[in-house]
Amino acid sequence: MRTLDKDEILARLDLERAEALLRQGFIAYSAGRAQLPPVQHFAFAEANGDCCVKSGYVEGESLFAVKVSSGFYDNSKRGLPSNQGLVLCFCARTGAPLALLRDEGWLTAWRTALAGRLAARVLAPRRVAAIGVVGTGLQARLQLRALQAATPCRDVWVWGRSEAQLAAFAAEFEPLGYRLRTTLDAEPLARACQLIVTCTPSTRPILQAGWLKPGTHVTAVGADAVGKQELAVELVAGADRVVVDSVAQCAAYGEVSHALVAGLLERERLTELGRVLAGERPGRQSEDEITLADLTGLAVQDAQIAKCVLEAEA
Amino acid sequence: MRTLDKDEILARLDLERAEALLRQGFIAYSAGRAQLPPVQHFAFAEANGDCCVKSGYVEGESLFAVKVSSGFYDNSKRGLPSNQGLVLCFCARTGAPLALLRDEGWLTAWRTALAGRLAARVLAPRRVAAIGVVGTGLQARLQLRALQAATPCRDVWVWGRSEAQLAAFAAEFEPLGYRLRTTLDAEPLARACQLIVTCTPSTRPILQAGWLKPGTHVTAVGADAVGKQELAVELVAGADRVVVDSVAQCAAYGEVSHALVAGLLERERLTELGRVLAGERPGRQSEDEITLADLTGLAVQDAQIAKCVLEAEA
Repeated sequence: MRTLDKDEILARLDLERAEALLRQGFIAYSAGRAQLPPVQHFAFAEANGDCCVKSGYVEGESLFAVKVSSGFYDNSKRGLPSNQGLVLCFCARTGAPLALLRDEGWLTAWRTALAGRLAARVLAPRRVAAIGVVGTGLQARLQLRALQAATPCRDVWVWGRSEAQLAAFAAEFEPLGYRLRTTLDAEPLARACQLIVTCTPSTRPILQAGWLKPGTHVTAVGADAVGKQELAVELVAGADRVVVDSVAQCAAYGEVSHALVAGLLERERLTELGRVLAGERPGRQSEDEITLADLTGLAVQDAQIAKCVLEAEA
Repeated sequence: MRTLDKDEILARLDLERAEALLRQGFIAYSAGRAQLPPVQHFAFAEANGDCCVKSGYVEGESLFAVKVSSGFYDNSKRGLPSNQGLVLCFCARTGAPLALLRDEGWLTAWRTALAGRLAARVLAPRRVAAIGVVGTGLQARLQLRALQAATPCRDVWVWGRSEAQLAAFAAEFEPLGYRLRTTLDAEPLARACQLIVTCTPSTRPILQAGWLKPGTHVTAVGADAVGKQELAVELVAGADRVVVDSVAQCAAYGEVSHALVAGLLERERLTELGRVLAGERPGRQSEDEITLADLTGLAVQDAQIAKCVLEAEA
């Protein structure tokens, strides 16, 4: 059994190969060829923390993965990271433990960003005049990096709650050839951009329905647990095409859950990303459609990105 | 984060301290002061294997545990162990990973055996003329070792399916001062013994109802998954006192599940071990009762025995 630390893991992570494996993972999941037992959740009320255990296996693959990720929101007061995580990989033929990936949450961050890239490949309009990034954290930065391969556009609007974070975001991407506009108001971003990613832990809608122009695609990755929401229910219900990573999971706590509960959206209108990637269902069908990808994160992504890292040994 | 291997773990394992922590764990569980998310199960049909992930946290404790244990039943053909397991421990105040315990399943084996000891302490009759051990595997051997502290009896009947395994069992315990009788027929064992432990992966009843004499206690630990059964339903239903580690889990797949499904037992007759250990419910009340302890294994046991090993550092 090997132990790899964050730096070793990131050095082995080939984003193109990871994207290909994630594509296979989404397809397998939607085809019923993956095992995803129920997510285990812990709550640590006194410590203001939580933890979840996500496990996944794509049938026929050589390994399965068990991921433990925690958020302890008072850790920063102690100089510790709020989010911690690790992934254990086991041989699917013998059960032997293969590797402990001490990725500190980076594999989750990248598999989420690359899912955004996959969604953009099948749903973004052909002409993107500007990319909109809602959020300034690590996931926002990785989403923008992941989109480099999906669109040639380098004009970017960024929304955040703090001028300092917006400035730091711009300082990271301007040297890479991006032209950035920062804003504390999400409306002009929504009106100007055709490819928008929302990447915040918000519990209230940031984007409203009337702001989007025809032909816009929105990928939302923030709503990964009950109570989170980045998009107004009218925006979700009004989209011409609603793609989800998992109907079951998104109906439980994704962006679409709020619209379903409000009675504004029917479950039949949801299409799984794996079916679109498999070519069984259409992606974007016209340049005028408003499309939405609601991504809550699946354990098959963890298993596939772990496989990517472990295979890089050869 | 530390990694301890099997030998280091067993060297740190103080059975008396472990028993005390397990007692606290059962009490906390039955009092609703423990978090046990649903067990995750994988099935690997082609490899003839399975895996489960059990996670547990006793509220107020310093750590929580995630255990991954697998059984791959063709491994012996490759010279590999069939059962493999490890336990991850995390700090309940910061989420930080504390330790990886590569116990190869030994912590599960011991926490199961010590649960048998706890059950015997509150349910075994005062006078035990003979102990009956049903099974000859590792768990059968550990149960007998664990019972050393619960009874002075050293007269033992052992049932097994193979003469060779019975001889090996006897060869292990005779030098320790035990007087052994081995048998391929379970009936004389059941008729002669007052403290019986059943520790097999059987899927058909081994012990029948009419064989037990008044005053006998039976602890059954084999039925830890759907489809397993060591005791006839009439034996279970006919016991004067039925104690379970978890009402919910035993009703799902313990020995009592079969009697519940058959309509021979009412759920109201089940008492949790934690309530008996807490003194809220009686243990054995007379020397004539037939008592039963149905133990399916709880993740609080994993968390508590892991704590025992980690605390031994000090």
